[in-house]
Amino acid sequence: MQKRNLEVCLTPVLLPLYNIENSIVVVIDIFRATSSICYGIANGAEAIIPVAKVEECLSYKDQNCLLAAERDGQVVEGFDFGNSPFAYTEEKVKGKTIVLTTTNGTYAIDESRKRAHQVIVGSFINLDAICNYLRNQDKDILLLCAGWKNRFNLEDTLFAGAVVTQLGLDGFELDDAAYAAEDLYLQAKEDLAGYTSKASHGKRMQRLNLQEDIKFCLNHNLTDAIPVLVNDKLVKM
Amino acid sequence: MQKRNLEVCLTPVLLPLYNIENSIVVVIDIFRATSSICYGIANGAEAIIPVAKVEECLSYKDQNCLLAAERDGQVVEGFDFGNSPFAYTEEKVKGKTIVLTTTNGTYAIDESRKRAHQVIVGSFINLDAICNYLRNQDKDILLLCAGWKNRFNLEDTLFAGAVVTQLGLDGFELDDAAYAAEDLYLQAKEDLAGYTSKASHGKRMQRLNLQEDIKFCLNHNLTDAIPVLVNDKLVKM
Repeated sequence: MQKRNLEVCLTPVLLPLYNIENSIVVVIDIFRATSSICYGIANGAEAIIPVAKVEECLSYKDQNCLLAAERDGQVVEGFDFGNSPFAYTEEKVKGKTIVLTTTNGTYAIDESRKRAHQVIVGSFINLDAICNYLRNQDKDILLLCAGWKNRFNLEDTLFAGAVVTQLGLDGFELDDAAYAAEDLYLQAKEDLAGYTSKASHGKRMQRLNLQEDIKFCLNHNLTDAIPVLVNDKLVKM
Repeated sequence: MQKRNLEVCLTPVLLPLYNIENSIVVVIDIFRATSSICYGIANGAEAIIPVAKVEECLSYKDQNCLLAAERDGQVVEGFDFGNSPFAYTEEKVKGKTIVLTTTNGTYAIDESRKRAHQVIVGSFINLDAICNYLRNQDKDILLLCAGWKNRFNLEDTLFAGAVVTQLGLDGFELDDAAYAAEDLYLQAKEDLAGYTSKASHGKRMQRLNLQEDIKFCLNHNLTDAIPVLVNDKLVKM
């Protein structure tokens, strides 16, 4: 039987190097976009519309949507909220459509939807659900780390490593980045919070007093919900 | 005292994201370009001229140079040799100027020389010399992995990790990629050959029967020579 490709794209800049026409792309932006998207979908948001630019987000004004915009770790002035997971609770998002733009995560979604067979959204809070789903599809897999402003980051790579570790080597052909991600995860998994505290974005969030957000985003398996991109909207699979 | 930046650029595609005007860039292409360049300079080559394209290499014909060209792991037809380190012995290269183009390494040199304060060439065979030199300069450091066709690769990242490990954290501000490289190296260092055997380029070289080249390129500290780019030529520092 032919092996399925299991690859890790360490930043969106590298995406053009990958053939993803036959792939499920898992977009990963642990601190905090994809963690919040998973939480919002789990809490009954009808849809989350990821857009790359702040202006695009603004164009949804008066359409009865919640508008969420984050840049450089902070809520953009004039918006309902940014990408803190605590803004995506059931009481705030149930039945609502949210239009969201973030520094890294929504850009990664935007880039991958143009070519991928399917785009789903992953985070530690739906890790097992993501792995169970991927295991049962007959498609190649690309784990796409959103990174920080197109650079490599630790926390997204660790999540990619967690997925590689769960899926195992049987039946998959890994690229070098998948091996590296797996080994970093195995080294970090006993103390993810400690390990990611040296990450540049972790430090940035500590400076912005976002420790509670960090802690939340490292929770495992709070939900089975998988956000999937259908047309231009992320909805519950 | 202000800390110096110690960063790792995991593939040349990411180079535009880094400010390197005040940096020493260490170009890394372990299998095999930079290992062979270090070995050639150590063995008395007068200069090695890295060029990005095969045609550019050919234009040096009749100028009394050795012409070396490698693509996809093999010597390009019609050339004196490629980038196997065994072609860079003293008897072959002493006093000679070599014009070299390779799949990844020379591209990385070409991209970095446009902006960097200084470009030097690193490999396991001159690891200690590289680290001693870097330690004593008052410049930022960028470890530039040539990768494989612009993708991340394990062996270049491991060498970057070896440098980070030797330099230590004191006095340096690491980026996330530097932390990751260090941790991968610490995990792999007891058995670099075993670890890199899972690397895609390692497998590719095994298929091409280049095991002896791999083994050679993982030797540590065969020389103190450091190739440095002066104008368009790599010469002994």
